Amino acid sequence: MYQWLDSVYSDGSKYYISNPYPVKGETISIRLRMLENTEITNVLLRTKEFGMERLYTMEILKKERGLLYFTCDVTVQETRLQYQFYLVTKEGIYYYTQYRITDYIPEESRDFTILVDYQRPDWMKKAVFYQIFPERFCNGQPELSVKDGEYTYQGHKAIQVKEWNKPALTWEEGHGVDFYGGDLYGILEQLDYLQQLGITAIYLNPIFVSPSVHKYDCIDFYHVDPHLGGDAALAKLAEELHIRNMKLILDISINHTSSAGEWFNRENEFYEKEVGAYQNKEAIERDFYFFDKENRYDTWVGVQTMPKLNYTSEELRNRIYKSSNSVLKKWIQAPYHIDGWRFDVADCMARNETIDLYHEVWREIRQELKKERPDILILAEDWSDCAGMFQGEEWDSAMNYFGCTRPIREFLGETDLFHARNEILRKVPVRMSARQLKNRILSYYSIIPGGIWNQLFNLLGSHDIARLHNNTQIHPEEYRGAVIMLFTLPGTPSIYYGDEILLAGRITDNEGFRYPMDWSKALSKEKEENYWLYQKLALLRQSSEALSDGGFIVVCEEGYVFAFARFTETELILVICSTDSKEQEIILPLKNFGIKDISMQEDYFGVQICAKAEEGMLKLNVLAHQSYLLQINLT
Amino acid sequence: MYQWLDSVYSDGSKYYISNPYPVKGETISIRLRMLENTEITNVLLRTKEFGMERLYTMEILKKERGLLYFTCDVTVQETRLQYQFYLVTKEGIYYYTQYRITDYIPEESRDFTILVDYQRPDWMKKAVFYQIFPERFCNGQPELSVKDGEYTYQGHKAIQVKEWNKPALTWEEGHGVDFYGGDLYGILEQLDYLQQLGITAIYLNPIFVSPSVHKYDCIDFYHVDPHLGGDAALAKLAEELHIRNMKLILDISINHTSSAGEWFNRENEFYEKEVGAYQNKEAIERDFYFFDKENRYDTWVGVQTMPKLNYTSEELRNRIYKSSNSVLKKWIQAPYHIDGWRFDVADCMARNETIDLYHEVWREIRQELKKERPDILILAEDWSDCAGMFQGEEWDSAMNYFGCTRPIREFLGETDLFHARNEILRKVPVRMSARQLKNRILSYYSIIPGGIWNQLFNLLGSHDIARLHNNTQIHPEEYRGAVIMLFTLPGTPSIYYGDEILLAGRITDNEGFRYPMDWSKALSKEKEENYWLYQKLALLRQSSEALSDGGFIVVCEEGYVFAFARFTETELILVICSTDSKEQEIILPLKNFGIKDISMQEDYFGVQICAKAEEGMLKLNVLAHQSYLLQINLT
Repeated sequence: MYQWLDSVYSDGSKYYISNPYPVKGETISIRLRMLENTEITNVLLRTKEFGMERLYTMEILKKERGLLYFTCDVTVQETRLQYQFYLVTKEGIYYYTQYRITDYIPEESRDFTILVDYQRPDWMKKAVFYQIFPERFCNGQPELSVKDGEYTYQGHKAIQVKEWNKPALTWEEGHGVDFYGGDLYGILEQLDYLQQLGITAIYLNPIFVSPSVHKYDCIDFYHVDPHLGGDAALAKLAEELHIRNMKLILDISINHTSSAGEWFNRENEFYEKEVGAYQNKEAIERDFYFFDKENRYDTWVGVQTMPKLNYTSEELRNRIYKSSNSVLKKWIQAPYHIDGWRFDVADCMARNETIDLYHEVWREIRQELKKERPDILILAEDWSDCAGMFQGEEWDSAMNYFGCTRPIREFLGETDLFHARNEILRKVPVRMSARQLKNRILSYYSIIPGGIWNQLFNLLGSHDIARLHNNTQIHPEEYRGAVIMLFTLPGTPSIYYGDEILLAGRITDNEGFRYPMDWSKALSKEKEENYWLYQKLALLRQSSEALSDGGFIVVCEEGYVFAFARFTETELILVICSTDSKEQEIILPLKNFGIKDISMQEDYFGVQICAKAEEGMLKLNVLAHQSYLLQINLT
Repeated sequence: MYQWLDSVYSDGSKYYISNPYPVKGETISIRLRMLENTEITNVLLRTKEFGMERLYTMEILKKERGLLYFTCDVTVQETRLQYQFYLVTKEGIYYYTQYRITDYIPEESRDFTILVDYQRPDWMKKAVFYQIFPERFCNGQPELSVKDGEYTYQGHKAIQVKEWNKPALTWEEGHGVDFYGGDLYGILEQLDYLQQLGITAIYLNPIFVSPSVHKYDCIDFYHVDPHLGGDAALAKLAEELHIRNMKLILDISINHTSSAGEWFNRENEFYEKEVGAYQNKEAIERDFYFFDKENRYDTWVGVQTMPKLNYTSEELRNRIYKSSNSVLKKWIQAPYHIDGWRFDVADCMARNETIDLYHEVWREIRQELKKERPDILILAEDWSDCAGMFQGEEWDSAMNYFGCTRPIREFLGETDLFHARNEILRKVPVRMSARQLKNRILSYYSIIPGGIWNQLFNLLGSHDIARLHNNTQIHPEEYRGAVIMLFTLPGTPSIYYGDEILLAGRITDNEGFRYPMDWSKALSKEKEENYWLYQKLALLRQSSEALSDGGFIVVCEEGYVFAFARFTETELILVICSTDSKEQEIILPLKNFGIKDISMQEDYFGVQICAKAEEGMLKLNVLAHQSYLLQINLT
């Protein structure tokens, strides 16, 4: 019933908005398409402008390959333009928002939304990221490495691990000061490797001065840690990346510092006693933190070595982001020219029991950074629904744990990453169906402006979560499907270093996610197939407009077979992922993409298939646990 | 399947939150209930505090009449507390937000939300409003009435209509200056009538000085129009209402003034030439408006006699709401002590092509008015989804056209009020099903904080829309159902004057909605049944906690039979409304409300029914077009 409704489509891309990123006062055309010869008599576009509903009658733009395109012009006059489509038939009216089609007037929270005067990182959509944990990637200059006992941090002496390919120590063994010696020069050495893999952008975990391995407890935001090569190494790395037309983003926690840092200096391990806020109540930096009368202070989730910063201080705001030589601006300037910031624990910034400056501070940070460079990427760490931050005034993107990592991994049978922290929830068995996966993803994407979709930072793994392939419960063929989804769902994919070679690791503790990169296996036969999967997908990302900017429709949600389309008017990519233990036949409505008859013998990876479309419906046998990617030229 | 899930319930009322309106730092208990003996093993409450997810394990509080209650304590620390419930079984987890239960992790836009430090009009929930268009309600002092030709307004001479019970003139006949002579003294005379009807609060359309009948084009916000009795009459009316423990709210448009007003004075009809911004470019009020170089100015939707106010002017803000003798404060103070403001065209306030001060100005207005009186009602006119304004910082309530008027009237077969304005949409036949009605209402309520639900301003009619009973397409028995829904859906009901006596009117033009109140028929036999319906419902509202503060669950959505429950732990009200032309048998799950066996022979109105519950399921025959209200004592 009403199958033609499944063909109705519009989105936030240039294929459906003449300029998806307009400036105020600009007139844009908005388009919608659907199958020809339906019950439709009219299509209206419904906006709200200056608080008032407005209806535009859409005109037929063209008919092409069985599809009918409607259009109308709208002049954008506010910072956001929200709209719905009204699909009129003789029998009734259907209402199309970014979520779904209803037969009743919907509320507006899932309206299509265009961000106006939005300064965006336009390079993001085409990027393929590679996340590097610098201390564990490659040792370029062994003489820089932290030496055994070189310093004491929080009561623990630094350890130099002499054998590179040794499993990372546990926290109890290494106390976070067990160094392997990876550095920025090592990364420089591997740029050819990365480019060959299809990488176009690098995201580095923190590199500013810090005595710890992870460096989220920074003691000096103004310098790169000398053990990683110092400022000079970063300048060189950035220069070389930019020559190769690659991007670089850095990771920073401006929510807190190290308690051993210059601004705080509780321990006197690295600074004199009179330096810093903890011991010197007259220090300028005293106002940078939340001290009570007993000199206790607020921290990041109770970690005493990470005192939380207090953004009521105007001087702190100046130092972090306002002044022209502020921390966040310094690294955007010459000679570093970094292309974006990844903000650690962005979700708890500038708020606690005492203050609520969250939105104020994020808006200011955005304004300041975009003044410095309009296409700078503002990427936030937030693991849950943070759609409210994507309204054009705060973040450009977030680590897409909520819309990508968590649902994909749950579809493969892993307990949700948040649920795993709770002893009641982690006991509940998981077997997520395709329908659940669809709802899980679409309900979230539908509250995010379309112009943001393709710059969400998609990932399967990171320094904070177990590598999926190291979970022995995961079926290797299904893992392959997860990787394909990573590269094909709306958003920019990021590979966590080593995932391309199935790098070893423990799944039981954070240190287990940060094994040194095993270069001996980097191009080994044994890992070749997995490497090739990543490489083939990375190269496809770079060439395929359908993936970087195209439409997104879920076309199958039967049992444990999940399939979706990414498409432009000239290209169709179909992704089919099964977590079923049995073979399934599925039927996909290719006519909704302008295809009538087609037959295919193999998929993009050369996997044998038997796919045949008649009258616009494609029949396909999906083998147990298998995934396919079909690329179809529509011209 | 999973029928027990239908019994899961929580809401924003005192029955499920120990204090639904807590202050920051307060510890509250949150509760949830469901049928006993389900598959549930645990219930968790999931909050987000300072940006981070937090899970609370809920404990069993009590078992009562087959229902199991869970509870946990939460300390509220931010301006809003959002939460979801996780319902854990051995097979999987269900997620309960204010909208529905899903089997996948939902995004957060429909979370239950508690407003913290929210200063509310606590009298609203129990109120029954009566909306009066003062010029057309009752003439108390004929000597005050506007005389024929007394003045000229916008080129038209005032007309005194001598016969009260004459149909209101059309705009073309009366030009908005056709006066019948209703005044505030007339309202004073009818307070016994209103109290007898069960009214506890009065909403007056604008009464400040204006030459027009509707007075939305005010020329002087500081005085009550002398033809309505002036300031003295208002003081007297307010005093008498408060003695009777009744509330009074006034209507005002601070979006624009009249072009003939003291601040603007385009016409010189009421002020000297040097007065006002239009002709005197040096006038202080020049900055109150949007003039261009050619002395053109911005208006309300193009109406040249209603120049739009410009809130970039600090002086304007002072005069309207900031200074202690500002317009909005003056009338809250002695001797008037009004209980709330109804803000006309609130949706377009302080924004246009030039400025975007909408949220800033509404936040300031709220702060200023709540300083003056914490329980003042801030009621906005907004016909569409305005859930975003109910987050504790802007409005307390809105004219609930979107969640009440429009869906109820559509359920009865009327073209949606907005659709009727469009020539394509108004041709599409309407026959809204019960399922559509349910989705239409719940999708909206679910994005509104629970603490707001019962103070939404519900209405079937107003000065802006045709009286429903005057539409001959509406089935009289179904109209009865609409009135019952008006009084029983979550929100505060408002009766538009005369609806209780089926006052005559045209449905074709605005003037047709504003016929003089026909006192000759006020208590006539002919209208008795309708009057009695309103009266019986008004009195029920005042006595029933289930209606003013109780839970809300839709219990039937079959075909054209819509049924819902309002309930506390001691009282259950079932409302059943049919727009079906055939008799239908429905089955309602009374066990979800703690009822096993019951039989009833008549409903609240004495209508004969045959209703029998066995094993907690109630069978009921619903006659064609009929509506029922069942009140069941649960103690």
